[in-house]
Amino acid sequence: MGKTLAYKILENHLVSGNLTPGEEITIKIDQTLTQDSTGTMVYLQLEAMDVDKVQTELSVAYIDHNTLQTGFENADDHAFIKSVAQRHGVLFSKPGNGICHQLHLENYGKPGKTLLGSDSHTPTGGGLGMIAIGAGGLDVAVAMAKGTYSLIAPKVIKVELKGQLQPWTSAKDVILYVLQQLSVKGGVGKIVEYTGEGVKSLSVTDRATITNMGAELGATTSVFPSDENTQAYLKSQGREADYTPLCADADAVYDQELIVDLNSLAPLAAQPHSPDNVDSVANIGEIKVDQVAIGSCTNSSYTDLMKVAAILKGKKVHPDVSLVISPGSSKILTKMAENGALADIIASGARIIENACGPCIGMGQSPKSGAVSLRTFNRNFKGRSGTLDADVYLVSPETAAISAVTGVLTDGSKTVQALPQIEDTDFTFNDNFIVYPEGTNTENTPVAMGPNIKPFPRNTALPETVEVTVTLHAGDNITTDDIMPSDSRLLPYRSNIPHLANYCFEKVDNEFAGRCKEAGSCAIVGGDNYGQGSSREHAALAPLYLGVKFVIAKSFARIHRSNLINSGIMPLVFEDPADYDDFSIGDKLVIENAPQQVKGGTVEVKNAGTGKVYKTKTNFSDLEIALILKGGKINYMKG
Amino acid sequence: MGKTLAYKILENHLVSGNLTPGEEITIKIDQTLTQDSTGTMVYLQLEAMDVDKVQTELSVAYIDHNTLQTGFENADDHAFIKSVAQRHGVLFSKPGNGICHQLHLENYGKPGKTLLGSDSHTPTGGGLGMIAIGAGGLDVAVAMAKGTYSLIAPKVIKVELKGQLQPWTSAKDVILYVLQQLSVKGGVGKIVEYTGEGVKSLSVTDRATITNMGAELGATTSVFPSDENTQAYLKSQGREADYTPLCADADAVYDQELIVDLNSLAPLAAQPHSPDNVDSVANIGEIKVDQVAIGSCTNSSYTDLMKVAAILKGKKVHPDVSLVISPGSSKILTKMAENGALADIIASGARIIENACGPCIGMGQSPKSGAVSLRTFNRNFKGRSGTLDADVYLVSPETAAISAVTGVLTDGSKTVQALPQIEDTDFTFNDNFIVYPEGTNTENTPVAMGPNIKPFPRNTALPETVEVTVTLHAGDNITTDDIMPSDSRLLPYRSNIPHLANYCFEKVDNEFAGRCKEAGSCAIVGGDNYGQGSSREHAALAPLYLGVKFVIAKSFARIHRSNLINSGIMPLVFEDPADYDDFSIGDKLVIENAPQQVKGGTVEVKNAGTGKVYKTKTNFSDLEIALILKGGKINYMKG
Repeated sequence: MGKTLAYKILENHLVSGNLTPGEEITIKIDQTLTQDSTGTMVYLQLEAMDVDKVQTELSVAYIDHNTLQTGFENADDHAFIKSVAQRHGVLFSKPGNGICHQLHLENYGKPGKTLLGSDSHTPTGGGLGMIAIGAGGLDVAVAMAKGTYSLIAPKVIKVELKGQLQPWTSAKDVILYVLQQLSVKGGVGKIVEYTGEGVKSLSVTDRATITNMGAELGATTSVFPSDENTQAYLKSQGREADYTPLCADADAVYDQELIVDLNSLAPLAAQPHSPDNVDSVANIGEIKVDQVAIGSCTNSSYTDLMKVAAILKGKKVHPDVSLVISPGSSKILTKMAENGALADIIASGARIIENACGPCIGMGQSPKSGAVSLRTFNRNFKGRSGTLDADVYLVSPETAAISAVTGVLTDGSKTVQALPQIEDTDFTFNDNFIVYPEGTNTENTPVAMGPNIKPFPRNTALPETVEVTVTLHAGDNITTDDIMPSDSRLLPYRSNIPHLANYCFEKVDNEFAGRCKEAGSCAIVGGDNYGQGSSREHAALAPLYLGVKFVIAKSFARIHRSNLINSGIMPLVFEDPADYDDFSIGDKLVIENAPQQVKGGTVEVKNAGTGKVYKTKTNFSDLEIALILKGGKINYMKG
Repeated sequence: MGKTLAYKILENHLVSGNLTPGEEITIKIDQTLTQDSTGTMVYLQLEAMDVDKVQTELSVAYIDHNTLQTGFENADDHAFIKSVAQRHGVLFSKPGNGICHQLHLENYGKPGKTLLGSDSHTPTGGGLGMIAIGAGGLDVAVAMAKGTYSLIAPKVIKVELKGQLQPWTSAKDVILYVLQQLSVKGGVGKIVEYTGEGVKSLSVTDRATITNMGAELGATTSVFPSDENTQAYLKSQGREADYTPLCADADAVYDQELIVDLNSLAPLAAQPHSPDNVDSVANIGEIKVDQVAIGSCTNSSYTDLMKVAAILKGKKVHPDVSLVISPGSSKILTKMAENGALADIIASGARIIENACGPCIGMGQSPKSGAVSLRTFNRNFKGRSGTLDADVYLVSPETAAISAVTGVLTDGSKTVQALPQIEDTDFTFNDNFIVYPEGTNTENTPVAMGPNIKPFPRNTALPETVEVTVTLHAGDNITTDDIMPSDSRLLPYRSNIPHLANYCFEKVDNEFAGRCKEAGSCAIVGGDNYGQGSSREHAALAPLYLGVKFVIAKSFARIHRSNLINSGIMPLVFEDPADYDDFSIGDKLVIENAPQQVKGGTVEVKNAGTGKVYKTKTNFSDLEIALILKGGKINYMKG
């Protein structure tokens, strides 16, 4: 039986476990990346593990999230990460260099390698034929310390690309189509593997757009073959030696299949407020546009921006539109400053902001009240732009650029404007933004701890008796955004759990934090799908800081459940979901013989007031039991 | 007796009054400019005056302050200003076009004209031979409505430039030297007029650097002659027709003189925390640098940035330095993207942020804790960078760029590096960032009022009896920053006085706002030099909103005193400064027969508790009496 490309790479990296969908496996991690928003916590955790040098082939610390620097906190974070990178042999990419995923693709990604990143869009590397996975920060810290990562072996979906994209459609439309077909839950527990003749017509950066936004499918990752286009891209970056051809066996067997006919794809848009709420631009119609934002790790490649420049050249941005462009990397910006394309873009009336994540993560460029904003980004969740009542549409760079000129959502294929073919280019090697961990005794570099950088909270070993007060009785589908809000106001405090904790569950119940502090030791009762959404471990660390010992819910989202266990907080599942209604804020709960019960697989929770006992399931693996008993992964790592 | 250039221009614009230093005069205003941070209030006030079209030859509304847009408020402000500009015949410059003063110089300034701007660095226009004055927003609104402005005719200081600047010294060093000689109070009530052979060696943008930062002298404005360099600059901008030669009479008589020997000037720096705390770079020594910021209305011209590019070309920014560059205008950025200079800058490892005020006004790029930051800006007040414990040094672009490479404060003239001569260039006309108030019935354009834009507070006519509670007993040298703090947290709320008012006097006494709200009608007791610092009228509008009826102090700073009167708040001066000690928070005060007393020139304030009466002086002009009686300038304007 032929093998999928995904499983070939996993097999090459298998350290332990049975490489079968649904089984827990441990794989070797060749490379890691972090960004600054999750990075400070990762490196605080790494410091706590008493590791000298990282065990990966390459680890890079990028600064791309908090680059606005509206207070000292951000620059202090950068200095902290720079100092710790120096201590442990990690490359440091200075702010201004660009967006981590674009930079990693350009400079470090290699076909057939594994990459673990503390950012959900790490699968961008799949465009180069890597297995590139986004994970919680602690898992990335462990990967640096031990060189391995454990996960449940995923199923593999085959997406076969037929034909060739027509003018005014591009890779963004491919992934929007896939999202329309599979939905934001369609990739959960799966790797999406692209095959077919259509692959040949996509450049590496096109492919990276698709694997990047594959994160919105909920997929573990997405992957493309490594072929002559991969070779050409690596050559253009002066890295031809890093090329290896890779593809699935012709008779590979997949768990699921989807066919995409590129010839018939029209320009698409994801409508408010979900990346899978997709329709054609033509169907949506010529709605008036207030803002157009081009950039992000999804669509800020050289070709993307050259197409934008070609569309804008000699044109004027519509008077009612604010067009803002954040290029993907310093190399791209340099090249476009050399070849005149950047001049064309600025002359049209476009705003150029720093090479960084910027508006995609709500750091700046919030549109006006009630605005329609077209964005080439990957997420259009309500309020993510910083403007709660804005309507954000996700589109391709081509659609964004032409709409910025017309002032209305525009299907370029219906216009008379011809879209010029963009020539590939060679890039000049430039590491002027990179700080290497060079010199002797770098491990003695002092850790630069700014006053906003606080130690992360540590749990203690599970006691015999756990006594708590219920401090929240939450509904279904609580997201990590609900648990630990993230916006331009709070993002600068990602290194400061004691401060962030004050805002924990702020939008759900703004007395939660105060109640926990009063109770000292507490528990949360939740409904179905507790902890869905982003992978941020701050949604576990803030409750840990506030004294949360366990969460009982009807069901848990996968990544948040892992983050809770990593923090030594027990995720317990009601045996009888109806028990949920029995609980109220203020209830005193007790778990007796806790370690023994955790080992046993069911945990009885007693209401100390009524004496009634509730049965819960744990579903813990052996490793998870060990983590809970030790009080979290850091304690476990330290033995 | 020969005339100064300043008085020639004033005479040409004299509407009423006696053109003699110390006398109140009214002059015709040819042009106005606003920026967005003060602009929303200006245009709310203009709307309140029921004016159709502005009465100036040209009025421009620039967006350059709040361009980070970390919430919807900023973009709403932009939309509001755009709509009102359309209604009243004002040009609207979109965000991304650049910094108001640089843009006005490039596109609209004309020798011999008068310019009034709601920004303290409006004197930049003096580099073109204009009388360009910064003023409170209400004065700019009135100038748009009536075409005039009233001021006390200033004295004129002659600054004679001898010789020629040596390599590695530049216009910035000239104004730093003048600040060292005259101090930040040296220009109060004066116009600084530059003459001498050295003028010929300075380009218009060099001159504009000097007149711009002349604001730090406390001067009314600064002015240069209009000569062949002026003609060349206007020609390079495609505006040769706007040229008029202008200079002082050879036998002009000045009130004060200062000679600057350009030949002997060395690279200088203003040390923390005042622009006049100047020493030579060589004397200060090679202190380690964490951040270098290049840009601002002082030093972001084409020549400035081309010099920076020449210094950085082929070099690497020091690994420990964050070098951030905010270009002055879209034209400059376009030109540098065309000629390769921008590529040289980026390739060196520099961060490019938007063409805007940015870090100069504390909107972003706050340095790390305890950092040394070299900035080409105009102010280095403690905390203005957003980092309270940072040390900011003000330097020239040349000094900034070479120090970014070496990592320490560096006197370029002591290095072996030759500084290439920068060729002038011609700029391409581009108005793609400008929205013209075109079309018919533009006065019917709806006013776009976002939810954060609140009506400005209005006072009422002075009643017979004024009864108040003392809500603050403040010390000496209270600044407008003390009264109404301005930082990245509060700047987005400049259109929302009710919100801002909650932070009024926050750092001095954080119960002030609450106390005022409780009292309803209140008064402030202050010491010497009450209201010094920036011209922001928010420092009068917030107290007005909170019910402040009068301020009794030992003495007042000039501009804030005007802003109080414009708001109908009486600034009263103790006849006996020792009375200050008699007052306490909570005192009930009464002014009886208030209108009659105001007309009389002394106002008796009675303590309702003790019955004791305190005499105060008003020093009101006839116009000021009328403003107080009506309850402020808006009420006065509306008749």
